[in-house]
Amino acid sequence: MASERRQVPLLPPDSRVGIIAGSGSLPVNVAQSLALAGHHPFIVIIEGEADRLSDLQAHQHVVLPLEAAAVAFDRMRKEGVTHAVLAGGIRRRPQLRKLRPTLRLITALPKVAWELTLGDDGLLRAVMRHIESTGIKLVGAQEIVPDLLAREGVMTRAAPEKADRRDIDAALQAALAIGRLDIGQAAIAVGGRVVALEGVEGTDGLLERMVALRSHGRLAGKGGGVLAKCTKPGQDLRADLPGIGVQTIRDAKRAGLRGIAVEANRAFVLDYADTIAAADDYGLFVVGVDVHA
Amino acid sequence: MASERRQVPLLPPDSRVGIIAGSGSLPVNVAQSLALAGHHPFIVIIEGEADRLSDLQAHQHVVLPLEAAAVAFDRMRKEGVTHAVLAGGIRRRPQLRKLRPTLRLITALPKVAWELTLGDDGLLRAVMRHIESTGIKLVGAQEIVPDLLAREGVMTRAAPEKADRRDIDAALQAALAIGRLDIGQAAIAVGGRVVALEGVEGTDGLLERMVALRSHGRLAGKGGGVLAKCTKPGQDLRADLPGIGVQTIRDAKRAGLRGIAVEANRAFVLDYADTIAAADDYGLFVVGVDVHA
Repeated sequence: MASERRQVPLLPPDSRVGIIAGSGSLPVNVAQSLALAGHHPFIVIIEGEADRLSDLQAHQHVVLPLEAAAVAFDRMRKEGVTHAVLAGGIRRRPQLRKLRPTLRLITALPKVAWELTLGDDGLLRAVMRHIESTGIKLVGAQEIVPDLLAREGVMTRAAPEKADRRDIDAALQAALAIGRLDIGQAAIAVGGRVVALEGVEGTDGLLERMVALRSHGRLAGKGGGVLAKCTKPGQDLRADLPGIGVQTIRDAKRAGLRGIAVEANRAFVLDYADTIAAADDYGLFVVGVDVHA
Repeated sequence: MASERRQVPLLPPDSRVGIIAGSGSLPVNVAQSLALAGHHPFIVIIEGEADRLSDLQAHQHVVLPLEAAAVAFDRMRKEGVTHAVLAGGIRRRPQLRKLRPTLRLITALPKVAWELTLGDDGLLRAVMRHIESTGIKLVGAQEIVPDLLAREGVMTRAAPEKADRRDIDAALQAALAIGRLDIGQAAIAVGGRVVALEGVEGTDGLLERMVALRSHGRLAGKGGGVLAKCTKPGQDLRADLPGIGVQTIRDAKRAGLRGIAVEANRAFVLDYADTIAAADDYGLFVVGVDVHA
């Protein structure tokens, strides 16, 4: 997209990046950024999860169901992939009975079976260990698209006011608390009060709920409110960094929020220019907060 | 209801109890328990919040909008009310601009205005102080219907198995964490993982969400799961104790859960016999857990 700022990924010249593409814009952003820098990625498009398929299919790719991800690693090695990136969300949990058996997977199965029952982080750690056992180096998407990380401070024309600061603090504190329990990365506060917490439904589901809460008068007619997103304390930063994009802005507007706070340097603002422009159109603020300050 | 076990409330003989009746079965249970013991309550039915109106209207009562609650205290004193009980949920937040002015309220207004912006507990504490400033003693519903408190251990024919115990632990831990932040009192875990947290939508909304998560395949086809409810650490026990009832059992069944864990001695099992019978019909377990053990 024209809105991405060009940059040169910090990769050795003979490296090739494999992108395991889940939902949202991050996989597209990573692929485009690599291609612009002359690196040609190989994309594993996760069936039923990846969005913006035509953008992804513009690059060399394979489409596989979630449960066949293990097969993908063999394929990636054949394609000369040296570095892998896990990009985008996986909404559905893998179903054990659908896992396509590979020799490597079968050896790992008791471990995988156990870890599938853990939280997001447990599952991710299992996947990561599996990838690295194939000799492919796992890197965080932010190492390839560092420009998409939220910077500290206000990114939009609108800026949070004093009442918004209370919402930001309350929502961030709640997001950290549930992150510590490996439950979710997002929370919404209105009038200084946390009203909704992200579970497995994801941020889109969370914002959808806000629309319903408002229309049912459960917020005392209070307007405003802030969505906050931050990493889970102690999470592996090579996957599942929180992110917002154009759709998040639209959903936040529909939910009647005044703005969004994201963890500075650890959350993505995807399709950066488009997302900030959308926020400016709607008069929402987007602010990066140093959560650990 | 025939299902309530008769008991004598621990009240002085010349006392009269005023019930401020929000949603759910608790106000009905409290009123019936009092009437059975020969105490005739005076009920303030909160318009648009109270359920089971015909059961409530069987007692002396007045119907008032939430914002006129202050008026209710003057009325209660005229009716000879010596003790008040806050019973049942208030789904809607009061709207300041709709508050009916009374002299007492106007004096308290800056304080009230501030506290309305706080969490549930902040708001409740304000209401409680206001009640006690009128000379009416505020008591917890559990002082009148102690038999409705969950006891420790399994209350149903079905009992939690080992995997359920993991769900119980995870969900209780999460419910405590969000309670500490004065956000909610309930959480749901499936396969050892917390998938949904209660915000302002309440337990019925939380269970409704589970139905949606299941039907969208967001739980890896995993069945089972547990709803846990407990008090917020440090909350005033004279109001807003967590509770479950027949509808909770029905909703939990629809959400595909295997059972419910509630904090022993601090959560209500409303319409006790009916609720446990419903759980037995559906094969769900209900267990009381000593959260602070």
